[in-house]
Amino acid sequence: MPEMMKAVIKPERAPGLRLTSAPLPQYGPTDVLVKVRAASICGTDLHIYHWDKWAQGRIQPPVIVGHEVCGDVVARGEMVAEPNLGDFVSLESHVICNTCQYCRTGRGHICERTRLIGVDRDGGFAEYIAIPAQNAWVNPPDLPVEIAVLQENFGNAVHTAFATDVTAKKVLVTGCGPVGVMCIAVVKAAGARSIYATDVSEYRLRMAREAGAALAVNPKTQDVVETVRAATDGEGVDVLLEMSGAPSAIEQGFTLLKPGGEAALLGVAPGPFNFDYNLDIVFKAAKVYGISGRKLWETWYQSRGLVRARAVDLSPLVTHRFKLEEYDEAFEVMASGESGKVVLFP
Amino acid sequence: MPEMMKAVIKPERAPGLRLTSAPLPQYGPTDVLVKVRAASICGTDLHIYHWDKWAQGRIQPPVIVGHEVCGDVVARGEMVAEPNLGDFVSLESHVICNTCQYCRTGRGHICERTRLIGVDRDGGFAEYIAIPAQNAWVNPPDLPVEIAVLQENFGNAVHTAFATDVTAKKVLVTGCGPVGVMCIAVVKAAGARSIYATDVSEYRLRMAREAGAALAVNPKTQDVVETVRAATDGEGVDVLLEMSGAPSAIEQGFTLLKPGGEAALLGVAPGPFNFDYNLDIVFKAAKVYGISGRKLWETWYQSRGLVRARAVDLSPLVTHRFKLEEYDEAFEVMASGESGKVVLFP
Amino acid sequence: MPEMMKAVIKPERAPGLRLTSAPLPQYGPTDVLVKVRAASICGTDLHIYHWDKWAQGRIQPPVIVGHEVCGDVVARGEMVAEPNLGDFVSLESHVICNTCQYCRTGRGHICERTRLIGVDRDGGFAEYIAIPAQNAWVNPPDLPVEIAVLQENFGNAVHTAFATDVTAKKVLVTGCGPVGVMCIAVVKAAGARSIYATDVSEYRLRMAREAGAALAVNPKTQDVVETVRAATDGEGVDVLLEMSGAPSAIEQGFTLLKPGGEAALLGVAPGPFNFDYNLDIVFKAAKVYGISGRKLWETWYQSRGLVRARAVDLSPLVTHRFKLEEYDEAFEVMASGESGKVVLFP
Amino acid sequence: MPEMMKAVIKPERAPGLRLTSAPLPQYGPTDVLVKVRAASICGTDLHIYHWDKWAQGRIQPPVIVGHEVCGDVVARGEMVAEPNLGDFVSLESHVICNTCQYCRTGRGHICERTRLIGVDRDGGFAEYIAIPAQNAWVNPPDLPVEIAVLQENFGNAVHTAFATDVTAKKVLVTGCGPVGVMCIAVVKAAGARSIYATDVSEYRLRMAREAGAALAVNPKTQDVVETVRAATDGEGVDVLLEMSGAPSAIEQGFTLLKPGGEAALLGVAPGPFNFDYNLDIVFKAAKVYGISGRKLWETWYQSRGLVRARAVDLSPLVTHRFKLEEYDEAFEVMASGESGKVVLFP
Repeated sequence: MPEMMKAVIKPERAPGLRLTSAPLPQYGPTDVLVKVRAASICGTDLHIYHWDKWAQGRIQPPVIVGHEVCGDVVARGEMVAEPNLGDFVSLESHVICNTCQYCRTGRGHICERTRLIGVDRDGGFAEYIAIPAQNAWVNPPDLPVEIAVLQENFGNAVHTAFATDVTAKKVLVTGCGPVGVMCIAVVKAAGARSIYATDVSEYRLRMAREAGAALAVNPKTQDVVETVRAATDGEGVDVLLEMSGAPSAIEQGFTLLKPGGEAALLGVAPGPFNFDYNLDIVFKAAKVYGISGRKLWETWYQSRGLVRARAVDLSPLVTHRFKLEEYDEAFEVMASGESGKVVLFP
Repeated sequence: MPEMMKAVIKPERAPGLRLTSAPLPQYGPTDVLVKVRAASICGTDLHIYHWDKWAQGRIQPPVIVGHEVCGDVVARGEMVAEPNLGDFVSLESHVICNTCQYCRTGRGHICERTRLIGVDRDGGFAEYIAIPAQNAWVNPPDLPVEIAVLQENFGNAVHTAFATDVTAKKVLVTGCGPVGVMCIAVVKAAGARSIYATDVSEYRLRMAREAGAALAVNPKTQDVVETVRAATDGEGVDVLLEMSGAPSAIEQGFTLLKPGGEAALLGVAPGPFNFDYNLDIVFKAAKVYGISGRKLWETWYQSRGLVRARAVDLSPLVTHRFKLEEYDEAFEVMASGESGKVVLFP
Repeated sequence: MPEMMKAVIKPERAPGLRLTSAPLPQYGPTDVLVKVRAASICGTDLHIYHWDKWAQGRIQPPVIVGHEVCGDVVARGEMVAEPNLGDFVSLESHVICNTCQYCRTGRGHICERTRLIGVDRDGGFAEYIAIPAQNAWVNPPDLPVEIAVLQENFGNAVHTAFATDVTAKKVLVTGCGPVGVMCIAVVKAAGARSIYATDVSEYRLRMAREAGAALAVNPKTQDVVETVRAATDGEGVDVLLEMSGAPSAIEQGFTLLKPGGEAALLGVAPGPFNFDYNLDIVFKAAKVYGISGRKLWETWYQSRGLVRARAVDLSPLVTHRFKLEEYDEAFEVMASGESGKVVLFP
Repeated sequence: MPEMMKAVIKPERAPGLRLTSAPLPQYGPTDVLVKVRAASICGTDLHIYHWDKWAQGRIQPPVIVGHEVCGDVVARGEMVAEPNLGDFVSLESHVICNTCQYCRTGRGHICERTRLIGVDRDGGFAEYIAIPAQNAWVNPPDLPVEIAVLQENFGNAVHTAFATDVTAKKVLVTGCGPVGVMCIAVVKAAGARSIYATDVSEYRLRMAREAGAALAVNPKTQDVVETVRAATDGEGVDVLLEMSGAPSAIEQGFTLLKPGGEAALLGVAPGPFNFDYNLDIVFKAAKVYGISGRKLWETWYQSRGLVRARAVDLSPLVTHRFKLEEYDEAFEVMASGESGKVVLFP
């Protein structure tokens, strides 16, 4: 194994990233060392790239960026029983403590000491990454690399969709970035009665329709509430899956939610905002679930089930591919809103 | 409207049925009168036909048989607000009291005073049937008659499947009569990872495969436990949907159920039998649900959702059609095991 | 029976109420006529009394006010099977349609055509009230009148508390009006690990402590977040039961809610407000339930269970009693914040 | 620390146990060494003592017996972050793999590679025991030793009771050994409407009454079904908690279970038996849960909550105390049926 490797880092407290040469990561007795095959770009990475307020409060440079990663196990600590050397793995990005009350009750996704790769510790926009063995999810050897690299992000979609009961129901997905589109595919696979989607990008609305949305509405050109209400015989929807974080979309979504309906919220709002608490939750007897990451590792099992059943086809999601060195161009495409997932290959 | 109508009745405490001329049913202030378009034959009807032990204990002749019915509302009592005259309806067969503790807590399917049409009161193998308005489920006017007539029985399949969580899971369906096959179709629509099925009839195993079973096993010629275990990497299944009532199938099903798995039981056993209570439930930490009828009316909404989404196609289920007068021939086909649903047209 | 009766009405679109003589209510074939024994005053009645914005938008005078009522069945329509003449009943205040999708799926509490007695139709601040038979809940004949009259309001507390899982948990109740105090008693009965309460009235905080709160905090004099956090080893609470509707209390409550915690919201906010959507729901992976009325009639069965088990003692809740004619004085006491429930006797 | 310690072992494949001198247990990098303060006797220990069929199939002598243990952490492996040296701990008896699909989805209680202390590896009827750090549950330093030692067994009661919804419900507990009696105390703490109990020992029925049973019935002298039905207005019970494993008690319990009721089954039957599958589960629409051990570690948190709230008082449960050397006498008392928990002190 080499002593040094290529890595894309946030070098300092300022916008932008940098390609650098970094030492091969060290791994502890319960860790594995993974040779990265591919890593995809997430919205979170864009925040880090642009060095926005959230990034300024969270990131301690220098750090290797990237948390959607797949690759091969090339070394492992002395206490690791699995995965095996040579296993092709996707990585869960949340490194959890295993000892807090949340970890000890099957809720590691809200571990109070969680550390995120590519954010709180070195990530996977690099040739190698060291990570606890339990974070390495073993794929079938023949799983396409572009499907494997999406598993982490796909898990967000699965977690959000399965927080509610969508089978035979009318479902609205607000926000059709890659997670939103994957969410539509999951909801479709689970036998929803009908799926409605909103986004401000025509590119993404097209992806939403291809993934299974019966109606994909652009709030810039159409009245979302009126359009979806008309399509649902005036009723609205049983389930809201909120993936945008935009207060206007949140408001439209809750307005369309039927009494007693369920809402799963993954999208992050820009900050506190004026929320119609009575109409949106109390009077409506809504059931509302905040969604954080993926369930460790229940969501991974569910994701595997959907992929193995061929109930969800993730391949159309990847629209752009770049070498690791082309990270600047890749981030530009990702920021344009005119893409699905953008994948980097080291 | 005529004063008399054709009807197939159980005339006396003995095997067989008889075609007769009966007075048009009377309807009360909260009832509707439905002109029957079609009625399908259920396993329960076979019990009545053959006058088995169960039938002898339950049926009080004379009674018009038949509880899977669709038709048009041609008259209604003075207190009926809906359905409207002319509505095309499918019938829920359980007439419930609305006042017992079960009815009053959204569990009318276990009403302690329930009366079944075609069993405890006159049914639908006839030209007309009177029934409480709330039992008439309004279909879209253009729903094919053969789909409409299956709704009641389809509801058993939907109720059974949705008592458990099948999405992304490995599911075993034991018993592939029409309800079992519909159950497979529902499980498929809900995005199961893989579906396994067992039955002793090759005809029905073929229907099971067409409905979505990855593997359909005949216990007369194959070792069910070994075969399904091999197909599931030695694991067994997450969910058992028991539709046969055969003790051997029940035992195979529970043996294949994974620890912590879910079992929904619709099949009726011939009587008490030697059951491995420890291994099948206690040690396995199984969750086991007895299934009775359909949820009134939650299951109907779910069924509608699946049909409207075109997530389930019921049309291959109907394999034989007869005039009401040909009921003897129809029952013979139904008893052969070489059929899907058999439908009578008055 | 008399032809006329005493009744307290909202006579016109202005503040205040008026005692008047009204004709005995007429009852339909599925109704009962109840001779009122007692009726208690709710926060909603205060809104009507003061003719606030909500009342102006909802109330169509003239209408007899009052929706927390118990009394004796003195007459019943020809189609009523139960309750019997002479039964001592408490009234469910929501008159539901029985035919909408919510009613037909066991969720009558969110019936889309619900009409509230004392608000949308004549209520119970009167000598008699007519109401659908299904809204009359039969009490044991020896149930104290002051317990019977509280059942409807008590149901709000039971519904809110049981929307979450409180047994062995740390629970915060924000808002200690009568429903909040009853909620504390329910949570105590269900074996909560510890109960914390907040209110701005020292009178009510005292009632909260007597009902079982380990700690009752006044935000006017103490830092709620700091105090409750200290009492919970820095953790916060597993469950928030929000009964106040005050944005500051809502914010404190959500701040104290643990990751993955449950919040049931009954309190009605004065309107939309600046809500920290990310921190309060999304990042926290909170499960949030809007609460509307009582489950019809599951909550009534639960309430009966708690009262019969003597697990909850409602008698300290009633602090003031008045004759119907003294309604003005009664409303004054109720508005003071220095009372528990105030009961009127016709 | 000494090199040798006292220990009670199963020395060979035959009835009886033996007091011996054993080497101090070795502990690995993720283990703790616990100096035992007390250990209580479980029904499982009786099986081992009597060398019954189950014991013959499971136990590989020699092995130190005992799995209900509390004590102090006196040493710990180099990778252990908690508990701390000196912590007073109760032990979870199931040593789980942390890597199987059950462990990885918050269901370690059904780990497919679980090993039980005192059964599959050395237990705690000794002066010291080595165990994985995660199995050591930290108690408050001042928790009475006799409460601490009961935590593991108490967890069975908590797990069983909380598998169902008992608050405000009618509950039947069949089997009033120590776990059954603790179950009654839990159900009482959780606000059940009424609790019924059965056992063949008058001693235990007395304990059941003291723990909160409204009615405790001896099937040797009374008709259980008739008596409980009369006490429940002919209705039966909402919840069955089966702790006996006796087929007759199981049958009585299911007969008394209401339609739609819940049954949690902890008792182990002597083997397969003639079970009325239709009446007990299918027609009744029962929900039946097999219970295995405790949820790791959700049940421990719930148990702590109940104990800290003083909602459950376990102190009356311990009826006999012996020195470790007096194990023969202790087992005799335990086998008599005339005891609560029997505790050994090394």
